Amino acid sequence: MSASAVETRTLLKLREGQRDASIDDWVVVEEPLEIRVGGETLAVVMRTPGDDLELGAGFVLTEGIVEAPEGIGTIRRCPEAKDGGENALDITLAPGFSFDPERHRRALVANAACGLCGRASLEALASRARPSDSTLRVPRSVLLDLPRRLSEAQGAFRRTGALHAAALFDAAGTLHVAREDVGRHNAVDKVIGRALFDQLPLSDLILLVSGRTSFEILQKAAVAGIPMVAAVSGPTTLAIETARTFNITLVNFLRPGGMNVASAPERITGGA
Amino acid sequence: MSASAVETRTLLKLREGQRDASIDDWVVVEEPLEIRVGGETLAVVMRTPGDDLELGAGFVLTEGIVEAPEGIGTIRRCPEAKDGGENALDITLAPGFSFDPERHRRALVANAACGLCGRASLEALASRARPSDSTLRVPRSVLLDLPRRLSEAQGAFRRTGALHAAALFDAAGTLHVAREDVGRHNAVDKVIGRALFDQLPLSDLILLVSGRTSFEILQKAAVAGIPMVAAVSGPTTLAIETARTFNITLVNFLRPGGMNVASAPERITGGA
Repeated sequence: MSASAVETRTLLKLREGQRDASIDDWVVVEEPLEIRVGGETLAVVMRTPGDDLELGAGFVLTEGIVEAPEGIGTIRRCPEAKDGGENALDITLAPGFSFDPERHRRALVANAACGLCGRASLEALASRARPSDSTLRVPRSVLLDLPRRLSEAQGAFRRTGALHAAALFDAAGTLHVAREDVGRHNAVDKVIGRALFDQLPLSDLILLVSGRTSFEILQKAAVAGIPMVAAVSGPTTLAIETARTFNITLVNFLRPGGMNVASAPERITGGA
Repeated sequence: MSASAVETRTLLKLREGQRDASIDDWVVVEEPLEIRVGGETLAVVMRTPGDDLELGAGFVLTEGIVEAPEGIGTIRRCPEAKDGGENALDITLAPGFSFDPERHRRALVANAACGLCGRASLEALASRARPSDSTLRVPRSVLLDLPRRLSEAQGAFRRTGALHAAALFDAAGTLHVAREDVGRHNAVDKVIGRALFDQLPLSDLILLVSGRTSFEILQKAAVAGIPMVAAVSGPTTLAIETARTFNITLVNFLRPGGMNVASAPERITGGA
């Protein structure tokens, strides 16, 4: 965690049977981050400061701004921004890659609107992702232990109650990267961005998220080539459809004693 | 809840000490909804089907597409859409109101990028919302009982574990409207949209949300003129700033026995 991910604020604490008290409590920081590509503003996301370069890299890959990690040339804070670039990033594309923000925006809407059902969203995604052919195999006992391992690595969540976590583990249960953010999608983009910087083999890793699995989480995993997504909470119908279309193992309600598997269970080994 | 908010899917259930079993489990439905204004596509949101007209009304108000509820002329499903309009809405503005999607998109980005800090986000919001002068007063004992009352009214959440809830209560603790959605923001837009249709006095009501309170939840409350937001989980720094700027009472960690109040505590009456 970055030092600036949580700050204290003075709040009024009301408890039954106790005198009202003014307390200093930990609160998760939320600030906008402007993401520019080649100097053009592409998006403004509300995020928890920290690991911003990772967030930018993960965002442009999983949102389809660049087609491959090699497409990212440089990522830097914008020195000309009023606040010294603390809340603005500029990303340049590598030679041979190009991006047209207007075309991208129109394509996103047109794809989603064409028939406009879950099927259309999956078809739009199919132009940017392929079904996983990963041979990853994970023992059931390793999976069951992942939430505990993530929890041990998490600092800010327990202090603030307002952060989402995402993490990448390998088949032996080793934690490679964990990030927390006020936004579920940001936490996923941050771990994927870190994995790109570290050249981690995403097709051999498991993405664990602290919350639910909706379409956009599975979409990001599919684009990044991650073969297994696990979550402590439940999935949506469209997340299940996406997992099945892209051969991603989808594990939900991963809690002591068990789990539900919605897609590609053959990657989970070991009996009851 | 709409009948289509949850569906069953066949999943593999793995439990320690039990034989692996194929089960039919409830899963929350997620589908895209295209929102058009005057025939032009404005946004595509991933949402749980049901109460779509409410979602559209709440969205265009709280996102600043129309400046006031009176600006909404008609809302209807698009009959020309391929699927009979199930996932597309068209909204017309009332006489005297107009909207330019491109200008709106540019304005949003420009506002957020101007200095790009929480302060800039608040300044952008100040052009669309005023500090609340509501004289609402709510007994502490009523507030403490709201989560239980919402829980009683919730159907799908306990079945699926993947829905967020939002609800509007009055100062006596009477539940006026509750909605669930896979998206936190959608649940808030749906209850605000329903309140507009029913002409409920939003400046006398409490918005209760099941999750966290981030900037966007407080932004929606500010634009809709809601004077009190309560949540079972924590706030972000920018949510606290927003509540204080717009004189909204912000209650967090509302749980049996107590709560924390970050802003405008004078609207909560009664001692410990």
